[in-house]
Amino acid sequence: MKTMNVGLIGFGTIGSGVVKALRSKRSALREKSGIDIRIARVCDKDLKTKRQVKVDKNLLTGSIGKVLYDPKIDIVIELIGGIRPAKDIVLEALRQGKHVVTANKALLSEAGSEIFSLANKLGLCVGFEASVGGGIPIIRSLKEGFVANRMDLIYGIINGTSNFILSSMTEGGHGFKEALAIAQANGYAERDPRLDISGMDSAHKLAILTALGFGLFVKPGDIYTEGIEDIEAGDIQYAKELGYEVKLLAIAKRAQDMLELRVHPTLIPKSRLLANVGGVYNAIFVKGDLIGENLFYGQGAGAKATSSAVVSDIISIAKEAASGAKVEQCAPFVKDVNGAKVMGDVKTRYYIRFSAIDKPGVLAKISGILGKHRISIASVSQKARKTAKIVPIVMMTHEALERDMAKALKEIDGLSMIKKRSVRIRVED
Amino acid sequence: MKTMNVGLIGFGTIGSGVVKALRSKRSALREKSGIDIRIARVCDKDLKTKRQVKVDKNLLTGSIGKVLYDPKIDIVIELIGGIRPAKDIVLEALRQGKHVVTANKALLSEAGSEIFSLANKLGLCVGFEASVGGGIPIIRSLKEGFVANRMDLIYGIINGTSNFILSSMTEGGHGFKEALAIAQANGYAERDPRLDISGMDSAHKLAILTALGFGLFVKPGDIYTEGIEDIEAGDIQYAKELGYEVKLLAIAKRAQDMLELRVHPTLIPKSRLLANVGGVYNAIFVKGDLIGENLFYGQGAGAKATSSAVVSDIISIAKEAASGAKVEQCAPFVKDVNGAKVMGDVKTRYYIRFSAIDKPGVLAKISGILGKHRISIASVSQKARKTAKIVPIVMMTHEALERDMAKALKEIDGLSMIKKRSVRIRVED
Repeated sequence: MKTMNVGLIGFGTIGSGVVKALRSKRSALREKSGIDIRIARVCDKDLKTKRQVKVDKNLLTGSIGKVLYDPKIDIVIELIGGIRPAKDIVLEALRQGKHVVTANKALLSEAGSEIFSLANKLGLCVGFEASVGGGIPIIRSLKEGFVANRMDLIYGIINGTSNFILSSMTEGGHGFKEALAIAQANGYAERDPRLDISGMDSAHKLAILTALGFGLFVKPGDIYTEGIEDIEAGDIQYAKELGYEVKLLAIAKRAQDMLELRVHPTLIPKSRLLANVGGVYNAIFVKGDLIGENLFYGQGAGAKATSSAVVSDIISIAKEAASGAKVEQCAPFVKDVNGAKVMGDVKTRYYIRFSAIDKPGVLAKISGILGKHRISIASVSQKARKTAKIVPIVMMTHEALERDMAKALKEIDGLSMIKKRSVRIRVED
Repeated sequence: MKTMNVGLIGFGTIGSGVVKALRSKRSALREKSGIDIRIARVCDKDLKTKRQVKVDKNLLTGSIGKVLYDPKIDIVIELIGGIRPAKDIVLEALRQGKHVVTANKALLSEAGSEIFSLANKLGLCVGFEASVGGGIPIIRSLKEGFVANRMDLIYGIINGTSNFILSSMTEGGHGFKEALAIAQANGYAERDPRLDISGMDSAHKLAILTALGFGLFVKPGDIYTEGIEDIEAGDIQYAKELGYEVKLLAIAKRAQDMLELRVHPTLIPKSRLLANVGGVYNAIFVKGDLIGENLFYGQGAGAKATSSAVVSDIISIAKEAASGAKVEQCAPFVKDVNGAKVMGDVKTRYYIRFSAIDKPGVLAKISGILGKHRISIASVSQKARKTAKIVPIVMMTHEALERDMAKALKEIDGLSMIKKRSVRIRVED
């Protein structure tokens, strides 16, 4: 039986999960793949903290070089996260002729193009199933399962923290801050939750899905990104009355030869499966010219689900490496769009809530300004007054240009009869 | 660039879809895989009927031997369906050193064990992504994505025809026959719909999922299979009132060291995503020890979705074959259960509807018999009288043994106060 040696860099929660899985599943994996996966080295700067799993002292090291420059090691598993020093580790591992498996979405979204082209040049593999959607096999499906498709659309609920918070606001009627505190108390949100609730984590993952689905590499910083911090319980309630749920959606949508790329809270019709994905779960909706509509649902995070993805990459790479085959391309990125659309050019429907003084003529004034900016109203309802004299007016619009909407809202918010900044949430039907 | 030659056997709807996809996607597939896929031969006994796609006359043949014995052909694509002559074709193709791609669920469920062991012995691949779930990449996910998991459960809505009929009964309030006629008029049911509505097609697919998920090969005839023919609109309505939807579910569920295998109409709580899968769509719910709960949703049939799956297999096999690698195992079947449980030993909750004469003592009599057979009642409601003197009594039970339930119902249906055979539908929560 062939043997493949793996070296882990990063022995935190995920790293411990991977060690545990490789060890407890060793014989089953041997039977399934015909290869014996051996943990040759585990590296972490912290060698003192007790882990959920015991590792032989001889295998433990604090020196990255002991993994990168060990000729026995075939596959390097990078699980430290972040850009530095992960990027140097991954590139150097490739230069040393080693395959790489990584769960690092920040790194791949920032430097994926560089990493993959080096891997392709050297005939090596970079496995990254764990970088998006945890245990959901979305990367493999886009790479292989849907290889014959021209993708039209990828929608993702790909941040469990945000989805938990929005679900808890929806079901429990909590405000954002309260829901965040509940998420933190349950271990579903970090003490510093900014990466998740700002939408940035979703943007990282969307950049990876975009590279795979459309062959386009974009920096996450170039993706229009809006988080869930400003969502109010009232808007979730109003949306519900209109038949919608509010979800933080990462969107890559083909529009002629261009691609719309954006991350923002989104109204999704309740009748859609995606709208019914609650709690910390992730879901990715994919539309292709042959498959039509497909949806994947599962745990997007956690040591177990993530280690399932990491191990699946290890096995795939090990099988390929053990067969002696030359890797032609570790991942197929075939560009089939011209580029990303400017956000101002995006057209969607909108949910808008105005906070207006309750007096005659307000609605006429607002709709006049919207009309001037080519925005037509699909429905409008005036909600029960919340505070003295200020009344929420909730509107759904027909499709309108982002640019026009921005101008209209700026003008409306400048009116003396408008007492708070208007809220607008985009709609995907 | 390397070239791989494929020979198609079966030029019907799916075959035409595959030819169309391979041709229109040729350059994109070349870019993605580094391999040029050439259609070397297309075989069908009917060479006269006009197809949706034109094929050069020189490529068309009525002789299977022209594909099987053509040394240029690397991959044989079997798309004729059924056991004979498909089985001989697949086995002979392997003996001739050719890889095989097939969408034939009847064949694989009946003779998968024989076919895969020959392929493994010869170092060849059999691709069968298209055999279950159409465009849903479930085969690849079970084989590779979830390789590290010990599977606990696979639930599938894997027959689009039945799901369409049940959805149309649910939404339109139609009776079974009416809903079947609508399905036929829409091209979602065959003129002879027995294979689909009897649950047999689902049993075929369940046998394939069971081999992959649990390493157990069972003949579809050995799977307890109940179709949707006896479902009445009233039961769907009562189930709805109780918070459930009725779906035809194919179930493979680990129970200690044994596996429960069954196909039958099932009450699923409305809160579950699976319950919300409507129309001709398929969905497969998978639970593993690392991934937790995963769900796949998509088009389970149709020329486009199926051809997407066939082409994905062609590309995977072509890449492997072109790399010169020796295929160690075309699919990993590692048996991790002792066998299939006898249906009588299965425990579930039940929905039961009795048709009783409306007189005192009926309920006492029924619940007495249930109690005698160790079946305890979770809820009971007497519905408005439908016909003179006969009243439907709807019950939900706690978990009970299939064997006990069968005995209890037999005894109850023998009572003079029971006027029609009682209806029982199993529940999965």
